Amino acid sequence: MNPRKSIHTFRILLAAGLFSAALPTLAEEPIQPIDPVKDINLAEVELGKKLYFDPRLSKSGFISCNSCHNLSMGGTDNLKTSIGHNWQQGPINAPTVLNSSLNVAQFWDGRATDLKEQAGGPIANPKEMAFSHTLTIEILESIPEYVMEFKQVFGSDEINIDSVTEAIAEFEKTLVTPNSRFDQWLLGNKNAITEQELAGYELFKNSGCVACHNGPAVGGTSFQKMGIVEPYQTKNDAIGLAGVTGKDADRFKFKVPTLRNVEMTYPYFHDGEAETLTEAVDIMGRLQLGRKFSDEENAKIVAFLKTLTGQQPAFMLPILPPSTDETRPPVPFD
Amino acid sequence: MNPRKSIHTFRILLAAGLFSAALPTLAEEPIQPIDPVKDINLAEVELGKKLYFDPRLSKSGFISCNSCHNLSMGGTDNLKTSIGHNWQQGPINAPTVLNSSLNVAQFWDGRATDLKEQAGGPIANPKEMAFSHTLTIEILESIPEYVMEFKQVFGSDEINIDSVTEAIAEFEKTLVTPNSRFDQWLLGNKNAITEQELAGYELFKNSGCVACHNGPAVGGTSFQKMGIVEPYQTKNDAIGLAGVTGKDADRFKFKVPTLRNVEMTYPYFHDGEAETLTEAVDIMGRLQLGRKFSDEENAKIVAFLKTLTGQQPAFMLPILPPSTDETRPPVPFD
Repeated sequence: MNPRKSIHTFRILLAAGLFSAALPTLAEEPIQPIDPVKDINLAEVELGKKLYFDPRLSKSGFISCNSCHNLSMGGTDNLKTSIGHNWQQGPINAPTVLNSSLNVAQFWDGRATDLKEQAGGPIANPKEMAFSHTLTIEILESIPEYVMEFKQVFGSDEINIDSVTEAIAEFEKTLVTPNSRFDQWLLGNKNAITEQELAGYELFKNSGCVACHNGPAVGGTSFQKMGIVEPYQTKNDAIGLAGVTGKDADRFKFKVPTLRNVEMTYPYFHDGEAETLTEAVDIMGRLQLGRKFSDEENAKIVAFLKTLTGQQPAFMLPILPPSTDETRPPVPFD
Repeated sequence: MNPRKSIHTFRILLAAGLFSAALPTLAEEPIQPIDPVKDINLAEVELGKKLYFDPRLSKSGFISCNSCHNLSMGGTDNLKTSIGHNWQQGPINAPTVLNSSLNVAQFWDGRATDLKEQAGGPIANPKEMAFSHTLTIEILESIPEYVMEFKQVFGSDEINIDSVTEAIAEFEKTLVTPNSRFDQWLLGNKNAITEQELAGYELFKNSGCVACHNGPAVGGTSFQKMGIVEPYQTKNDAIGLAGVTGKDADRFKFKVPTLRNVEMTYPYFHDGEAETLTEAVDIMGRLQLGRKFSDEENAKIVAFLKTLTGQQPAFMLPILPPSTDETRPPVPFD
């Protein structure tokens, strides 16, 4: 936009009352708008997108990254805990892949420092895709279209797990969800959210939720103990950060999940035991803040949380290059 | 295109030698080009696309139509037999959904007369999605965005299995794959296929493959016995058409599969036991035609078959409306 046109637009918006006199100053708010994707390697993204959807990265040929981090469904599977190879029950709720590039670390216990490190995990996990990095490479190398694309993207005839996870991570970096109604409000459009939603946001701030759920992802920036004021009762065995640090003080500390698109990422908590946002808000209030929200307060916060649903990933369903006579067939049934 | 421009284009193409003097006359060929989609209800298609990708149509919340008829993978799962609820092994190879609107009937044994009737099957099959039509409707009715979309599409406040399967079938009608290299050749571009591929087509015709694999789908028009000249050896229990007609003469008669996109729809046959096209062509030659193709002949036919890969479905990954507090949660583990 040229500067003159921009000033003109601003005057029109002012005249239309679209900007409040008391504009919230971004720096003052504990939540910031999500930045749209800027610096990205598009060739890696396109390759990574195929890999993300390719079930040949699993032993069965049936499970892809998208099976449990389904991009039609908020980047989750909407199950308490996931279904893995041979219908094994996963140990923990699958966190959303949406905006995961904004997380301080990956997995609930933060055992992977970044998306690239994360991407290698499920492929080789016997309870998830149950495959191996070596076999994954063998599969990809048997498919000429993959070989050619890896060569174009990475400039090498060799495919290795490093390039595979690099490409998947680059694709995942595109999975941010800017432009939610709340972000529009943050950016100055006071009509983007309702009074009730705004009241919910005020309550969310005043009652202390933002202490942990802050930043552009409204979470994802720290590890916190599940059950501070009251202990959290669960049958789930996960011990959280302690499994990574070995420190007893880190038991039941989990990465604070992002609340972006939280309307789509049910059920909630690391054990997936909270089925509704109402339930999750109630439990968080009591266990983390020592505060029992009234029904009305709860409804306000839930209304605010629903304004965090942003623009979902928009891309063509990728078409995967076919296997060849040399490709090892999947082994769904042992 | 206006007529004058069209004539002009034709002259240019003639001058460039893109049309052969000895154009094949379409009517003379046993295979016809696939028609692009013409008469379609786009509103139904968009709704049906969501339903096709929605795993909430299964008991587990994990299996959608796209799980076994994966549109990234030629409309199949590329497994010998599919994986169903609780990782049950399916009884038969999942046929491709691509161009299935051109089939004389649906399923290998033709037990569904059309796509609409087919669509209801897997939802309620305890070995597949293991759900029920009643529960499917209950789920959809708990999601306001679905209720609204059904109302817009069908003009009724009530969702029923009839409208669900109607929408899925309408979406599936869009899954045709025109414009393969072979179709370009059929339409007059003699350079669209190589000499070897053309020789393969001639052999395909002369040796009798076209007796069953004909029409726009290169199959799908009749039921034939698997193993005519020699019996087919298989551990698979499927008896084919006889299960529908009750006639002993229909034992081991299966719907002739389409060969469109056959490069992508491995493994082959109703039991999925042929892993490669080379193997499938060899077995078909011996068992159905009493002819042992030489390696060279086999390679020619395989080369021809690979020209049948058409334009794959091209659409944005659908985003599904989220469940609500009223939506019954899935039951992945009993």
